[in-house]
Amino acid sequence: MSKKLTSRSEDYSKWYNELVVKADLAENSAVRGCMVIKPYGYAIWEKMQAELDKKFKETGHQNAYFPLFVPKSLFEAEERNAEGFAKECAVVTHYRLQNDPDKPGKLRVDPEARLEEELVVRPTSEAIIWNTFKGWVQSYRDLPLLINQWANVVRWEMRTRLFLRTAEFLWQEGHTAHATKVEALDEAKLMNGVYANFVENFMAIPVIQGVKTENERFAGADETYCIEALMQDGKALQAGTSHFLGQNFAKAFDVKFANKEGKQDYVWATSWGVSTRLMGALIMTHSDDHGLVLPPSLAPNQVVIVPIYKSEDDLNEITEVANSILADLRSKNRTAKFDNRTTHRPGAKFAQHELQGVPLRIAIGPKDLANGTVEIARRDTLTKEIVSLNYLAARVEALLEDIQSSLYNKALNYRDTHSTEVNSFDEFKDVLENKGGFISAHWDGTNDTEDKIKDLTKATIRCIPLENKKEEGVCVFTGNPSKQRVLFAKAY
Amino acid sequence: MSKKLTSRSEDYSKWYNELVVKADLAENSAVRGCMVIKPYGYAIWEKMQAELDKKFKETGHQNAYFPLFVPKSLFEAEERNAEGFAKECAVVTHYRLQNDPDKPGKLRVDPEARLEEELVVRPTSEAIIWNTFKGWVQSYRDLPLLINQWANVVRWEMRTRLFLRTAEFLWQEGHTAHATKVEALDEAKLMNGVYANFVENFMAIPVIQGVKTENERFAGADETYCIEALMQDGKALQAGTSHFLGQNFAKAFDVKFANKEGKQDYVWATSWGVSTRLMGALIMTHSDDHGLVLPPSLAPNQVVIVPIYKSEDDLNEITEVANSILADLRSKNRTAKFDNRTTHRPGAKFAQHELQGVPLRIAIGPKDLANGTVEIARRDTLTKEIVSLNYLAARVEALLEDIQSSLYNKALNYRDTHSTEVNSFDEFKDVLENKGGFISAHWDGTNDTEDKIKDLTKATIRCIPLENKKEEGVCVFTGNPSKQRVLFAKAY
Repeated sequence: MSKKLTSRSEDYSKWYNELVVKADLAENSAVRGCMVIKPYGYAIWEKMQAELDKKFKETGHQNAYFPLFVPKSLFEAEERNAEGFAKECAVVTHYRLQNDPDKPGKLRVDPEARLEEELVVRPTSEAIIWNTFKGWVQSYRDLPLLINQWANVVRWEMRTRLFLRTAEFLWQEGHTAHATKVEALDEAKLMNGVYANFVENFMAIPVIQGVKTENERFAGADETYCIEALMQDGKALQAGTSHFLGQNFAKAFDVKFANKEGKQDYVWATSWGVSTRLMGALIMTHSDDHGLVLPPSLAPNQVVIVPIYKSEDDLNEITEVANSILADLRSKNRTAKFDNRTTHRPGAKFAQHELQGVPLRIAIGPKDLANGTVEIARRDTLTKEIVSLNYLAARVEALLEDIQSSLYNKALNYRDTHSTEVNSFDEFKDVLENKGGFISAHWDGTNDTEDKIKDLTKATIRCIPLENKKEEGVCVFTGNPSKQRVLFAKAY
Repeated sequence: MSKKLTSRSEDYSKWYNELVVKADLAENSAVRGCMVIKPYGYAIWEKMQAELDKKFKETGHQNAYFPLFVPKSLFEAEERNAEGFAKECAVVTHYRLQNDPDKPGKLRVDPEARLEEELVVRPTSEAIIWNTFKGWVQSYRDLPLLINQWANVVRWEMRTRLFLRTAEFLWQEGHTAHATKVEALDEAKLMNGVYANFVENFMAIPVIQGVKTENERFAGADETYCIEALMQDGKALQAGTSHFLGQNFAKAFDVKFANKEGKQDYVWATSWGVSTRLMGALIMTHSDDHGLVLPPSLAPNQVVIVPIYKSEDDLNEITEVANSILADLRSKNRTAKFDNRTTHRPGAKFAQHELQGVPLRIAIGPKDLANGTVEIARRDTLTKEIVSLNYLAARVEALLEDIQSSLYNKALNYRDTHSTEVNSFDEFKDVLENKGGFISAHWDGTNDTEDKIKDLTKATIRCIPLENKKEEGVCVFTGNPSKQRVLFAKAY
């Protein structure tokens, strides 16, 4: 492994790709566009899963599991949804291989084993789930249905990047059914808020909650709520979406219920999801030219202890001190590791933990033993300090809390200084090209204007912020009247 | 929902299918052979996952994630493995749908979007993982690799049954790489032991640890260890397997390492897995004609409290008592629920909790309020008792522990009384037909004899028990010399 990462200023995209691989987060696989999530990357994803799963259960949702495959006839039932995903569907057509008569030792698809109906590998599960919900809902007593699924999905993207856009990715997808429109709308907003809360407080990434324009809505949704984050290169990243699906899927799959008055009505729906894409947001928000930077709440190891020694006696003494520190940290529910590998020298260990973003590194050498101290290095600021063992526990707690909030504040500060109000299209283009970030501008509300701005600048409307001040004005592009500013940005 | 289950004696297979659906564990989906795991069933699976995952991590394994798809050329690299699974592979051949020109509103596979190389939906992941391991292993310092994956896999089975045999199922698959044969063999045995420990202590199902005969080995393995359980109908169920793969996959994917002496050698491998099939084992081991019976360690709710009341005042008082019981149980890490639904009468609640196997049901009525008592009903024995609130906490603990061990002992007793040593083929057939269960018999060690016995009786060799007394004898079928008895049974 070469030690030096490409710097962000040199080539941001290359920096990202190198970091993901060198920090042992993920790598490309033999399957076009599909990634291998390596143990260190997966450990971070597991922490995200655990926290999200807790939040889903606290809000009354239950997990379930639905089939990987969607028969084509079900897939096409909700037309807008089908049309939105048709171009990126992996399709199973056969169910058997056989020995290839022309090539000994090789296999071929058995032409006799063609499926009567092709199966789409789920790009999202509305179709298969709503076809199932039909059997679960008869009366208002069966509602609401509050279901979540942790699963893999496949979208055959032509240009892929580790975590950000892969043909297969891992996600959770919530699917809920309600008796009223208001209840479904509330659910969609609630879950968008759950995402915002998670991403801000757990991932230390500030987000803007908003609604998508019609152009950017999920295929099949009547409204899409979203959380948008800003990366260090001034591009936006959609970190999660929550859809109000109206009665579209209920109508496509004929899911009706008897309401309290005994009348039949179609069920109202939501769906919402976040994916391993969040790993990309995490990396791009906090990391630096030395490698990954992790908020303590997501670090597989919040603290590593590295021994520095020449003699076995020193190592034994250091081990004793380290074990006592470990025990203390674990009693506080902190994750910590004593890196006593004999195959690596301290310098190599330091470099690895820096590259992998361990929030705090404690080094203990002979001088520390003599003085009753340790050296603590902080990953986010790269600063070091000597701390007496007597105060270590309290200091570690304080530092971990400070890192968590500092990372958030740093990202918030970046976003604040990279959010610009513009009032003309020249200004719009200038800011977009020379500064980047979110551009708050008036827009006349038409798809046409949105498309033209996108064609000219590659910027899209990321969202109409939920907490938008109502301010009338004129569209930066057409000069037509506008009711409020919206957020534009180039996006991942 | 009809209240009455088919009884086991009437039709065991029908009883099973009905129970799975009526207890809300799983149901068939619109995709042939694929199931929907419903929230209640999934909650039990999550408990299994959590405990297994803990055990894997305690034994040094890390989770990772590998692609769903295996390119055909990789899939066929290890020939025995490929041959073993070729007949049940779902194959992706295309990556796009398009509007069907002949059928407005319908989609068809885009004939232009044919993949250059077909992708197999993983039936197991040795091929894709060993192709990845190639990049991870250079030196003995990189070993052992101890990796686990939680994933869905697809095996296109022609005859499917909920949980027991489905086209798609959920599982974990461990994949490890080692420097020596001994270490890999030890790992395979260790993980078989981890499975045995989990299934016995957590699922309350006694198992026999053994090795498979060559006929029954995993395709591509040099040795397959297994745990075998006995169901209430006298049929065996393979509950988990752990394979010593020798250097077969290392050779197929050219995975070599430099050993301590600097010499290149192929890596040694294991793989091991358990799946949602365990749900089938759980159901068939403990349940009765009233429905599911769950060991407390796997019950989503170990205790439910049902209020019985006429007046609002009574309900308020009962709620107060219930909340205090809930708080107490939760402080002891027990899961409990107060079933205060107003949409169902107590009788319907009792029936549901019985069907769903809740270990303890507490009923509180006005008389209980007056006397400071509750009624506890035990699901496994269907017995009831009146307990003073003063002793309730201790009584619940004692009962839950007793249920866990009673279920195990009952299953062990069933297995003991349904394990028979036979010494002639007539006796073999007689026991198999009239009593069922495990048959311990001498076998001459040849595939041929094993095949013939299977053809004649449908019984297979489930395993050669690890703790087998060495006893010479003569094969029940051929009369040829035999070195030890092996376990035969009809199996799921």
